[in-house]
Amino acid sequence: MKLIRYGPAGKEKPGILIDNKRYDTSALTKDYDEAFFESDGLNRLKRYLHTSTQLPEISDDLRLGCPVARPSKIVCTGLNYRDHALEMTQPLPTEPVLFLKATTAITGPYDDIIIPKNSVKTDWEVELAIVIARKCSYVEESRAMEYVAGFMLHNDVSEREFQLERNGTWVKGKGCDTFAPLGPYLVTPDEIININNLRLWLKVNGKIMQDSNTSSMIFKIPFIVAYISQFMTLLPGDIISTGSPSGVGKGQTPPFYLKDGDAVELGIDGLGESKQTLRMHPSQVS
Amino acid sequence: MKLIRYGPAGKEKPGILIDNKRYDTSALTKDYDEAFFESDGLNRLKRYLHTSTQLPEISDDLRLGCPVARPSKIVCTGLNYRDHALEMTQPLPTEPVLFLKATTAITGPYDDIIIPKNSVKTDWEVELAIVIARKCSYVEESRAMEYVAGFMLHNDVSEREFQLERNGTWVKGKGCDTFAPLGPYLVTPDEIININNLRLWLKVNGKIMQDSNTSSMIFKIPFIVAYISQFMTLLPGDIISTGSPSGVGKGQTPPFYLKDGDAVELGIDGLGESKQTLRMHPSQVS
Repeated sequence: MKLIRYGPAGKEKPGILIDNKRYDTSALTKDYDEAFFESDGLNRLKRYLHTSTQLPEISDDLRLGCPVARPSKIVCTGLNYRDHALEMTQPLPTEPVLFLKATTAITGPYDDIIIPKNSVKTDWEVELAIVIARKCSYVEESRAMEYVAGFMLHNDVSEREFQLERNGTWVKGKGCDTFAPLGPYLVTPDEIININNLRLWLKVNGKIMQDSNTSSMIFKIPFIVAYISQFMTLLPGDIISTGSPSGVGKGQTPPFYLKDGDAVELGIDGLGESKQTLRMHPSQVS
Repeated sequence: MKLIRYGPAGKEKPGILIDNKRYDTSALTKDYDEAFFESDGLNRLKRYLHTSTQLPEISDDLRLGCPVARPSKIVCTGLNYRDHALEMTQPLPTEPVLFLKATTAITGPYDDIIIPKNSVKTDWEVELAIVIARKCSYVEESRAMEYVAGFMLHNDVSEREFQLERNGTWVKGKGCDTFAPLGPYLVTPDEIININNLRLWLKVNGKIMQDSNTSSMIFKIPFIVAYISQFMTLLPGDIISTGSPSGVGKGQTPPFYLKDGDAVELGIDGLGESKQTLRMHPSQVS
């Protein structure tokens, strides 16, 4: 299944994508949120789709939001591709590097990315994100996939000066508003043949900047889920992002960053594509 | 006003503390959550208390929870007391050090603190926490207090090995379940004469370990709120913690940490007191 949420920001409704057509599912559930996943929502949705004779179709023109509503947290894995760790001039991690991204950063897959006030180093990162289906704590790696609802495309937008030069952990540069475009859809695991062999790519103004494969992840998805659950309980709907390959702006010679009007397109095999346009914060538009 | 939430974990109801007696306020609001603060809840509560002839009294025996329900985030300020930065052998910050604490760490003021599996360095930190009343972004320092709903006592429990020796930012050691005992109550600003002159203290097994005053904060509350809002939008109900003074376990000679059965008591002038007992994670009890 491919779960979508559509409508104005903050007022999204749940839906489903079938054969490239969008349908509303709000007769089944108010939203794709913690309560939905916690109450066996994915299986209920599957049965609903099997038994419904006619789903209400939605216009293709309506905005898409993040496929999951208001997770309790976004846990990110840093430096999880060897070539990206090298371009960031960081040592290869011996265990996953974790950080949290403020959930207020969440935005839709085709929404604008707002360059924060005083930002000069807004950068891109294509990533595969995991959505948690069931509450888990201290889960074993061998059972970790039982707790996964599915996967989404994520642009882990990062302000490098805020992240690395402003005296603190990474949160200042990772959690700015609009810095987490997610979607277009949440894909359930049954639709992915091999999660460890998906091409992921990102273009800036039409030029390919990142082009890699999930096979190059240092720490694999079951290990990451199990690992994080040793440090904190994961709730239904929580999002885990699994790191970005090389090709970010900071890794260029010389480094360059996003500016007003730039277009970022990204995609992962089976998880769809997204596109964001960069905009200055309104206060800085002259 | 002193807002409380009472009842079993995850099923708390809203209430109010008046002259050391507890009363239920669920006739006014379902909970003290984002929707409550966003809809001018504090003023509605004030009017409700003025006009209600008889509030339902609650037993003193009922458990207290965190005074605020499910914030979108907990933003913490690290090393915000000079003497604590020194004992942590860290340089004095030139601007606030920020990190996020997973909201799944939230627990009640008298609940047990669970020592995580494989933890050997579970430590304490008494802190003053701020609750946000209204959505804000890029707020100016001179207006920051208009966005503050009130203050709470917080034990920013920290696993030092997870935080500092496990290859990443601080989240692994800050967001473990039960690592954010908050309360007993949320105090509105009108009840605090001078927020910059409150004693804060913490005892372990009856012995005073931390004893300082909010006057020793490096960065003051209006500045901290304004500063964080430059990097991310703050939502109604969001929690900001303002750092801990010296006297943590890691700062002792030699360092020592909490163990099963230890009792931690803490307090801040005007914000009440709390007490937690340390317990091994159930899997580690022999």
